[in-house]
Amino acid sequence: MIKASVLGATGYAGVELVRLLTKHSKVQITHLTSKSYAGKKLSDVYPSFAGILDIVLEDTDIDAVCKDSDVVFTALPHGAAKEVIPQLAQRGVRIIDFSGDYRYKNKDVYEKWYGEKHTSPHLLEKAVYGLCELYREEIKNADLVGNPGCYTTCSILALAPLVSNKLIDTKSIIIDAKSGVTGAGRTTALDYSFCECTENMRAYKIATHRHTSEIEQELSILADEDIVLSFTPHLVPLKRGILATCYVNLKKPKATGEIIKIFKEFYKGERFIRIYEEGKLPDTKNVAGSNFVDMAVVVDARLGRVVVVSCLDNIVKGAAGQAIQNMNIMFGMDEYEGIDCAPFYL
Amino acid sequence: MIKASVLGATGYAGVELVRLLTKHSKVQITHLTSKSYAGKKLSDVYPSFAGILDIVLEDTDIDAVCKDSDVVFTALPHGAAKEVIPQLAQRGVRIIDFSGDYRYKNKDVYEKWYGEKHTSPHLLEKAVYGLCELYREEIKNADLVGNPGCYTTCSILALAPLVSNKLIDTKSIIIDAKSGVTGAGRTTALDYSFCECTENMRAYKIATHRHTSEIEQELSILADEDIVLSFTPHLVPLKRGILATCYVNLKKPKATGEIIKIFKEFYKGERFIRIYEEGKLPDTKNVAGSNFVDMAVVVDARLGRVVVVSCLDNIVKGAAGQAIQNMNIMFGMDEYEGIDCAPFYL
Amino acid sequence: MIKASVLGATGYAGVELVRLLTKHSKVQITHLTSKSYAGKKLSDVYPSFAGILDIVLEDTDIDAVCKDSDVVFTALPHGAAKEVIPQLAQRGVRIIDFSGDYRYKNKDVYEKWYGEKHTSPHLLEKAVYGLCELYREEIKNADLVGNPGCYTTCSILALAPLVSNKLIDTKSIIIDAKSGVTGAGRTTALDYSFCECTENMRAYKIATHRHTSEIEQELSILADEDIVLSFTPHLVPLKRGILATCYVNLKKPKATGEIIKIFKEFYKGERFIRIYEEGKLPDTKNVAGSNFVDMAVVVDARLGRVVVVSCLDNIVKGAAGQAIQNMNIMFGMDEYEGIDCAPFYL
Amino acid sequence: MIKASVLGATGYAGVELVRLLTKHSKVQITHLTSKSYAGKKLSDVYPSFAGILDIVLEDTDIDAVCKDSDVVFTALPHGAAKEVIPQLAQRGVRIIDFSGDYRYKNKDVYEKWYGEKHTSPHLLEKAVYGLCELYREEIKNADLVGNPGCYTTCSILALAPLVSNKLIDTKSIIIDAKSGVTGAGRTTALDYSFCECTENMRAYKIATHRHTSEIEQELSILADEDIVLSFTPHLVPLKRGILATCYVNLKKPKATGEIIKIFKEFYKGERFIRIYEEGKLPDTKNVAGSNFVDMAVVVDARLGRVVVVSCLDNIVKGAAGQAIQNMNIMFGMDEYEGIDCAPFYL
Repeated sequence: MIKASVLGATGYAGVELVRLLTKHSKVQITHLTSKSYAGKKLSDVYPSFAGILDIVLEDTDIDAVCKDSDVVFTALPHGAAKEVIPQLAQRGVRIIDFSGDYRYKNKDVYEKWYGEKHTSPHLLEKAVYGLCELYREEIKNADLVGNPGCYTTCSILALAPLVSNKLIDTKSIIIDAKSGVTGAGRTTALDYSFCECTENMRAYKIATHRHTSEIEQELSILADEDIVLSFTPHLVPLKRGILATCYVNLKKPKATGEIIKIFKEFYKGERFIRIYEEGKLPDTKNVAGSNFVDMAVVVDARLGRVVVVSCLDNIVKGAAGQAIQNMNIMFGMDEYEGIDCAPFYL
Repeated sequence: MIKASVLGATGYAGVELVRLLTKHSKVQITHLTSKSYAGKKLSDVYPSFAGILDIVLEDTDIDAVCKDSDVVFTALPHGAAKEVIPQLAQRGVRIIDFSGDYRYKNKDVYEKWYGEKHTSPHLLEKAVYGLCELYREEIKNADLVGNPGCYTTCSILALAPLVSNKLIDTKSIIIDAKSGVTGAGRTTALDYSFCECTENMRAYKIATHRHTSEIEQELSILADEDIVLSFTPHLVPLKRGILATCYVNLKKPKATGEIIKIFKEFYKGERFIRIYEEGKLPDTKNVAGSNFVDMAVVVDARLGRVVVVSCLDNIVKGAAGQAIQNMNIMFGMDEYEGIDCAPFYL
Repeated sequence: MIKASVLGATGYAGVELVRLLTKHSKVQITHLTSKSYAGKKLSDVYPSFAGILDIVLEDTDIDAVCKDSDVVFTALPHGAAKEVIPQLAQRGVRIIDFSGDYRYKNKDVYEKWYGEKHTSPHLLEKAVYGLCELYREEIKNADLVGNPGCYTTCSILALAPLVSNKLIDTKSIIIDAKSGVTGAGRTTALDYSFCECTENMRAYKIATHRHTSEIEQELSILADEDIVLSFTPHLVPLKRGILATCYVNLKKPKATGEIIKIFKEFYKGERFIRIYEEGKLPDTKNVAGSNFVDMAVVVDARLGRVVVVSCLDNIVKGAAGQAIQNMNIMFGMDEYEGIDCAPFYL
Repeated sequence: MIKASVLGATGYAGVELVRLLTKHSKVQITHLTSKSYAGKKLSDVYPSFAGILDIVLEDTDIDAVCKDSDVVFTALPHGAAKEVIPQLAQRGVRIIDFSGDYRYKNKDVYEKWYGEKHTSPHLLEKAVYGLCELYREEIKNADLVGNPGCYTTCSILALAPLVSNKLIDTKSIIIDAKSGVTGAGRTTALDYSFCECTENMRAYKIATHRHTSEIEQELSILADEDIVLSFTPHLVPLKRGILATCYVNLKKPKATGEIIKIFKEFYKGERFIRIYEEGKLPDTKNVAGSNFVDMAVVVDARLGRVVVVSCLDNIVKGAAGQAIQNMNIMFGMDEYEGIDCAPFYL
């Protein structure tokens, strides 16, 4: 039994993490913090938890938290993570951070895309990028894991087999991604109100979304060359789900079946990656509420282009579920514990 | 470990049952049948299950099913249940039926509301009405459980404390219920297509919905007098959830707090019933994906009228979850096993 | 050609009014005001209007507005209307107000339900209640019209034929109403964010919603006796639409067909009221985007109870459309001008 | 006043056409046909039309239709158009066809992508491609207009300025398009049921969707070279709206502002094309219910790539609205008549 705390437990990623942790057989939740709701019960904010987890939300007291936590998840709003994590790190607790702050190898890239100084660059060297399927070995001994973004996980996993095997023209990468609204977090901004969102869709932050730099970093490592790519996020009217449609030009002609084989080989033994058979395409409902990433591949022979469609639940595999997967790996537990449930579908 | 089979596993209630059963620690799924998809894998119909439950859907072979099933869930379309259940009953397997066929004490009531003959009335005597909170003792030894309807469970539980305690004018009962679209099942009828359903709501089957008779039967038993009532179902554009707003006139004035106390007393120890404190009202998202029934009570002192608002997930507590709860009771297992997870909320 | 201005043009009711006015052949829009967006173009706030109405939003300058307005629509947030209307009235402009401030005969009722002092009670006597089907003659010469609320219009029109004809037990009235989310206005409150609203429904303000008092006032006038009733609003996940399900006990038995005849007689010649034939029930999509009110009646003979289902578009007949209908009547124009278009359905 | 008939008036494109025609001041609707509902009133199928258009749906009698129609709109299911149009053409009536059958210059392309023989190839020469902004002159005298598809209109208009001005590498074109569910028509297929569609999204027909060939045809004409491109349609859970995100590589570097200027120049005087200022991106709600096409352009300087985002209402500018625009041009009426209303937004 390990002790886990969540800082920022009432945001959507935080509360999804709590939901999943309540079914984890090896974890005891010790502290949940919330700036806005400290002193209230979790079930006052989310009545869904009444009778499931009757716990009081706390203000963030680092010492109190560290005293009885083996792992601390930081699901804090942007900016807040950076302030608290150095303090946690000093006290020797293992950390899984949901922000972008510890996902970068190079602080300059971070500072350029985030438009602000990095205040604890020394931790970047210690931090491991928590994309479990690619960094499992490093994660085992990590004390600080930068849990990847939702768009990022979906996009990198979709392209990793092609990039690693050097099958594509790396200048041709285009990722057209669509996200559900939980991706924006628990927000009161007008743009995310029901009447403004439902029956609507739109692209946003074209060519400037921060996750672009994270995808480029990871694909560049896999390719062993500098990759620059197009990434376009879209907002669509559903709660959970990201679907990334990725376009790349093949160096040499290949049939759809051959590429599928390469994907299956690349993800052999990976329980959470499901490669679809030729002719099938994924629906986000097939992964909703789960830690799965579903992928399909289509070669457009006329153009020598591969289209990879990849989808996941942005607050599970794109946040809370992957965080648990990271924890399971870090603490030598069964990697699937607490996250191997069937998707909602309905 | 008990062996369980599901007849009609690809309808929405059936597949939700399968989803929940995959996380039940004491159940092994032995047969899933499907008239439309026999021979296919479950994951061909619901790709969400790939890697979770790789099982082939079968045609219904009663002997094969009974040979290795301790319990059979019949989640069949109306009419089909009645044909297969007598055969199952003969072979000694325990049955939990999702249809209306075995929920009635009096076959005349069934025949009047369903407009057809009951072909196995002898089984009505053996059948137990599977509303766990009211019939727990009878369910323990039942061989055939008529698993209650979704509207029914929501409505009966909302009114049981008032009716049992003889606090209300039983001629005044009005139940205005709203249901999500999964309540219509997995259907291709035009009325339930996305474009016809979304951004729309409507009442239907006013004064003629079959569940009316089921609610009347159970409240009459609790009241020990014949109750006739108004029940109006509505279709609203969401997937999961029923919300019943119930109006009844009090015999004598009572404060909201007094009625809440009566509800808490009535449902003392019932894990799945959550009574809200005065001033709070339930949202269906608080119960989505779970076996909970959330209730609130408001007395309108000006009118001497109580309003009870009750909600549940129609395919969990209103179908699959309650079926598992029944199974747990029947087989002496922990009543909460497999169904004590936190609601989805998101 | 009359000149019309809208104070509060960027709220949902205001902007819907502007949308409808752009197609009114006899109206020229002269001023649109907005506290939050003064100085911006309407199309900066609602890009939908680009090329349709290129007008700059202004701060509220009463003199400027009155100088070139024959009619002023006040679609202001609660509280703001009361401050500005006396000033408008002094300047002799005709006013159609969307707030609750000038809908009451009796200031005590207003003060009780709104919990605040009425600061211009002298205007209550002059104000006409703008429910066109009931007050057409008074509206013709009105200088100040209190445009009815959305729930109110839907509920009063549903019950008027029964109450006027003294067919029902007036103590038995129960109105269970369901509203789309535009009813909450253009708000940033968390409760109305997409992720909190979609796939959810709930009742709110049971026995305390302000519209209760407005419905009681009008039905009392029609009945010529004091009526107190139950009104329960619900929030459902769609944008446009209110559906009111009304329950009343008949004094004497009547068949559904008889009641339908009474409704048709009562609303004879009313273009915007559509009474459904026996056996048909309305969908809110049938009225979306239009000024229609669709109604159906079902008698439950077992109980001597009538159920009336009534629906309308809350921001058209429940706000902007009815305001235009009032304007048309006030200025002797064709009552249907600008609002006789087919509903959206899709 | 011209006389217009609609064959296939109860499909979604057909009924939207009827909705718009009821507000067209120069058109009298003479015949509406429907295979499934002949003999019923339009308002029996779409109660929204009660009191707006009380007309009986007919079986298709070509002679009767042609006798009093100046123009016939054929909004028929695939296959049915081809059978009826030669008969209409023989009788000298002018035709606006919603199907793909008369949109091709080359019958081989049609036969390859549609997988069937073209049975009236002689009409292809007479037919004019009804993309009003590109073929206005030809449309004026056309007797048969092939009204473009929804994806097609959105995509061609997004790329026409770049292709015509030879600014891009024509091998690099990628169109990632997202459509609302009305695009699938009025269908009972399970995939389009509410519970399967809502809270879900997916790509479909990657590299094989028929509209690909139509886009290629038109862009090839504009470029004066053979263009082959990637087109990926997606289904998203809303009713109305297509959003196409188009990626192309620039031959020479250009700033976003320069490209916007080129777009504005190209579409000068086009009322229904709205080019967004730099930094703004379109929402489909801004065009819902209208004939507008909204577009934004972003240059990704790092990559020398332009992203064009284009959106429209698939059943208005993508079907019924464009058909009316074509009719207006063909009959020398004001091109905007009947379709110059403000979008719904809400």
